[in-house]
Amino acid sequence: MKKSIICITLAAVASGISGATLAQQKPEDVIKYRKAVMSIQSWHMRPMAAMVKGQRPFDAEVFAFNAQVIGQTARMKGDAFAPGTAKAPDVESRAKPEIWSEPEKFKQALDRFQAEASKLVEASKAGNLDAVRPAFGGVAKACGACHDSFRTK
Amino acid sequence: MKKSIICITLAAVASGISGATLAQQKPEDVIKYRKAVMSIQSWHMRPMAAMVKGQRPFDAEVFAFNAQVIGQTARMKGDAFAPGTAKAPDVESRAKPEIWSEPEKFKQALDRFQAEASKLVEASKAGNLDAVRPAFGGVAKACGACHDSFRTK
Repeated sequence: MKKSIICITLAAVASGISGATLAQQKPEDVIKYRKAVMSIQSWHMRPMAAMVKGQRPFDAEVFAFNAQVIGQTARMKGDAFAPGTAKAPDVESRAKPEIWSEPEKFKQALDRFQAEASKLVEASKAGNLDAVRPAFGGVAKACGACHDSFRTK
Repeated sequence: MKKSIICITLAAVASGISGATLAQQKPEDVIKYRKAVMSIQSWHMRPMAAMVKGQRPFDAEVFAFNAQVIGQTARMKGDAFAPGTAKAPDVESRAKPEIWSEPEKFKQALDRFQAEASKLVEASKAGNLDAVRPAFGGVAKACGACHDSFRTK
């Protein structure tokens, strides 16, 4: 039990420094924040996906901005998955209990996402599609892997 | 009429480059995105407010991260207030119609917010509370001014 608590704390610390005081947050507020972070990420992945797939012309500035959003929001996940926020009244959440019952596995998934997001931000600085394509794929796979394990259908 | 359309377009272009293709977005999706942006901003203003008010110790790194979130999300407002997204089924919105009927006034409010957010990001690099206090106040006032004019109670 003690080990789990330590791991959860480490996961929270390692995965973000957005720095809202967790102890003061109500679970429903954290869940709303978590869903907002996910919405923002989904929104900003789309234009990059369209460029990578050739559905819209590559625009280096637009791509880089969207990449930066992913890089920055990746750092919000510590707060967004604070302990004790699996459920709350009047707010739906698709977060699986394994996020908190298997904190080491969850931390690995988050770390992978953050590492891939950082690579994407770096790749986007090159300003060309060939540089960002593999990095974007890495982020998309990290998103999917985490959703497969830790989000209900 | 033609002038209004041009102004709206200018407002959208000037206020953000997040770059989702507006024409492809459903109003309800834009409203959800807008609310997510607002939620994220509210969340990340709070720890800075607490530091400025002396309710929690000043942490330069945490402050700077939160300032960067405000700076980056300020650039999302163009997409978030895309024309034709005042209302949609099954989604509440507190956005006033004046956002789109008085686009020049709204653009001024957004420009002010973006300018204040940029100042806050710059000020946060100094790493001390005295530097960020006035800049934080500038952002908070810009938030409030826009809400007073363009958000229902």
